[in-house]
Amino acid sequence: MNNPQLNKHGELQHLLSTEGLSASILFKILDKADSFLNVAEGREIKKLPLLHGISIFNIFFENSTRTRTTFEIAAKRLSADVVNLNISSSSASKGESLLDTVDNLCAMHADMFVVRHAQSGAAHLIARHVAPEIHVINAGDGRHAHPTQALLDMFTIRYYKKEFHNLRVAIVGDILHSRVARSQIHALTTLGVPEVRVIAPKTLLPGCVDKLGVRVFHDLAAGLRDVDVVMMLRLQNERMQGAILPSAQEYFKYYGLTQEKLALARSDAIVMHPGPMNRGVEIDSSVADGAQSVILPQVTFGIAVRMAVMSTLAGVG
Amino acid sequence: MNNPQLNKHGELQHLLSTEGLSASILFKILDKADSFLNVAEGREIKKLPLLHGISIFNIFFENSTRTRTTFEIAAKRLSADVVNLNISSSSASKGESLLDTVDNLCAMHADMFVVRHAQSGAAHLIARHVAPEIHVINAGDGRHAHPTQALLDMFTIRYYKKEFHNLRVAIVGDILHSRVARSQIHALTTLGVPEVRVIAPKTLLPGCVDKLGVRVFHDLAAGLRDVDVVMMLRLQNERMQGAILPSAQEYFKYYGLTQEKLALARSDAIVMHPGPMNRGVEIDSSVADGAQSVILPQVTFGIAVRMAVMSTLAGVG
Amino acid sequence: MNNPQLNKHGELQHLLSTEGLSASILFKILDKADSFLNVAEGREIKKLPLLHGISIFNIFFENSTRTRTTFEIAAKRLSADVVNLNISSSSASKGESLLDTVDNLCAMHADMFVVRHAQSGAAHLIARHVAPEIHVINAGDGRHAHPTQALLDMFTIRYYKKEFHNLRVAIVGDILHSRVARSQIHALTTLGVPEVRVIAPKTLLPGCVDKLGVRVFHDLAAGLRDVDVVMMLRLQNERMQGAILPSAQEYFKYYGLTQEKLALARSDAIVMHPGPMNRGVEIDSSVADGAQSVILPQVTFGIAVRMAVMSTLAGVG
Repeated sequence: MNNPQLNKHGELQHLLSTEGLSASILFKILDKADSFLNVAEGREIKKLPLLHGISIFNIFFENSTRTRTTFEIAAKRLSADVVNLNISSSSASKGESLLDTVDNLCAMHADMFVVRHAQSGAAHLIARHVAPEIHVINAGDGRHAHPTQALLDMFTIRYYKKEFHNLRVAIVGDILHSRVARSQIHALTTLGVPEVRVIAPKTLLPGCVDKLGVRVFHDLAAGLRDVDVVMMLRLQNERMQGAILPSAQEYFKYYGLTQEKLALARSDAIVMHPGPMNRGVEIDSSVADGAQSVILPQVTFGIAVRMAVMSTLAGVG
Repeated sequence: MNNPQLNKHGELQHLLSTEGLSASILFKILDKADSFLNVAEGREIKKLPLLHGISIFNIFFENSTRTRTTFEIAAKRLSADVVNLNISSSSASKGESLLDTVDNLCAMHADMFVVRHAQSGAAHLIARHVAPEIHVINAGDGRHAHPTQALLDMFTIRYYKKEFHNLRVAIVGDILHSRVARSQIHALTTLGVPEVRVIAPKTLLPGCVDKLGVRVFHDLAAGLRDVDVVMMLRLQNERMQGAILPSAQEYFKYYGLTQEKLALARSDAIVMHPGPMNRGVEIDSSVADGAQSVILPQVTFGIAVRMAVMSTLAGVG
Repeated sequence: MNNPQLNKHGELQHLLSTEGLSASILFKILDKADSFLNVAEGREIKKLPLLHGISIFNIFFENSTRTRTTFEIAAKRLSADVVNLNISSSSASKGESLLDTVDNLCAMHADMFVVRHAQSGAAHLIARHVAPEIHVINAGDGRHAHPTQALLDMFTIRYYKKEFHNLRVAIVGDILHSRVARSQIHALTTLGVPEVRVIAPKTLLPGCVDKLGVRVFHDLAAGLRDVDVVMMLRLQNERMQGAILPSAQEYFKYYGLTQEKLALARSDAIVMHPGPMNRGVEIDSSVADGAQSVILPQVTFGIAVRMAVMSTLAGVG
């Protein structure tokens, strides 16, 4: 009813979070991404004129070359005009408020904002603020949400597993600080995955984790048993020192995904990671590069999914 | 005769300053911007092929994401190819001279340079140096000039007030350090505004201010009385400490624009600001967001005006 | 046979070095650049649709605005989509390995990488690693190679001297640390220049210099006598202090190119420099700006040559 992501016709107006989106909306995006994947794979023409004349602003208050690049590529393959703004080193330092910055960009007749911000809720704040013809895509806000990552993960799972209703999926690692994990859990449950597990030490789990509809494991071996999908999380370097974790080596010993541990999952289980990987910390290189890894296909699918989100928001294609 | 901004046919060759440009040239740009404004407002197609194949280099020796973005957007809406160069962190650090850098960019067959530089006169220096087929737009040089800002201000005034010949216009704030104020004053007097006032403390006025053909006020209330247009200036953060000003609070008390002060102007007076604003320093939020504020329309008009300048220089459209 | 730059049909797959490329391949690139030069000089249309839909990633692990700009301009004049990545400040700082970064960019369906890296061999490493449909251009790797610079130098020499087989060419300066010199020497000898000289103090010559098929001079006057082409090298600022060189003044005294020294070369000798120049260190301003200097035409030709390399690799045009 009062979902800030939907317009009054129930269509997607902003993509801020996978929370609160219906299975039907998620499936529509995945289906559209399917069609763009063919565009990307086809060798003749990789570019579509769907967003010609549309201005997309990548507003990154937090630096991330990789994520920015995926959105830039997706926008250019749809023939949009892309403007990259690294705000941290600019207006912010001149003391201008976030909303004044946004107002100014709106006044330049932006059509779409892709927003990355270190504070949870920044994309929602912007979406509530902008004029109704402008669309906001959350490219990661604090610990809150990273919906395009979750959508490309769902695309990847469907690509390899066809259906969601018969899967056991494990998310492994730093759930506490992960916007990716939050968005994955909402998407997986919405799409009908009957069993979502989270595997982490107690210090890396949020207090309210049981309210998310997941099974909690502290033991990696127990949690991986018979799962169809293993979704690894990146361990931020800054967690590896100090009170939360004794050391990267220690973490790897208990929560690093090795071939031996992976053997406990179903034999056709796939391994995913949002990147960038810490090899030897959360994942062993033999797994990252192994036959069950679909980590690089995730990146490819990510372009198609972002094209799908952009064209859905623009109401074309 | 020897105006570096005009070619031998008296047409605009470079836009370096509003000083020395005739009312006829200024009006031509404003009229062209009018036509582009419709392009920007129209929802169907926001892009014109006028500058297809033209290479525009944004050469920013001084960082300004916001200003760079307005030029980038304007150029892309005209289908030009845009290359952004942040020179401070590059050749300059390798010890290459400004003119060697410019020579190199000319040799890459640039068609247009948009130049921002901390030193007054930099854009003139470059304009005198380049080959005759290359056009230079000054996007702000030191304390000297910022002509596209002044032109978009003139566009804004005409948009709301229709005529210039019957206006009282007040410019408020740090006149001394402001390239914006200098360019505004030249444009206003050229376009026939009969009374231009500047309102500032003595420490923020240039010595020769009376030679500019303006009335000087040190008292905000007296200066605002019966004006049609209030043009606020940004107070640079670095002025707020040290000898020039006691504090931001003190400045706001005497020169900050509040609703109370604004009530002294004509009831239909408009309030302008070049951005980014220091809310609570030079302008109160209730004024910035109030019914008389045209600060965001200024930004929108700024894109159309920059499109007009670019296409005028390129001799198209 | 096992040349990593060629595909199984003997066609150019990557451009990593001028070493190991046949005269026929080099001439093909120069001839193609000839045709693009006309595009660049022509005032009507400077843009060709040859690479429409092609994604070119400028991956700069080492910052160089100037070199990045030349590739960006070349790609845009061929209508490619260009994405600029400054990796030093991004994934690298997150601890991701070079090859993981490359794998990710490949997975985004890049068609071409332009790579700049401080370590010799980085471009080779990447070329060996990528999928067969992806092309790598080395834009400078450590002290190893800078093949597009050498190719544009060859283009320049042919433009002014028509033939290679009757030339004496001198390369002057810091041969030891110069990837440019290495690539120039290989290209000159391959194209049939009968006499290539290197002129440098002993401290700025590699140990194995005699194996490169060049004549070594330590005296600038002796080395310049009767040459047709003088190719100056940039003296990196960091060499000017410490053990290798006493001072910039000292260097200029013995190895700086002045009008007086240049008079020892043939009267129609041309002077080249890859830029950015240290005026008064390796070259006197009167020479840099003199009648025999072709330093700025080099830059212009560089765009055409890079367009030729890109379209050759893409198999079009």
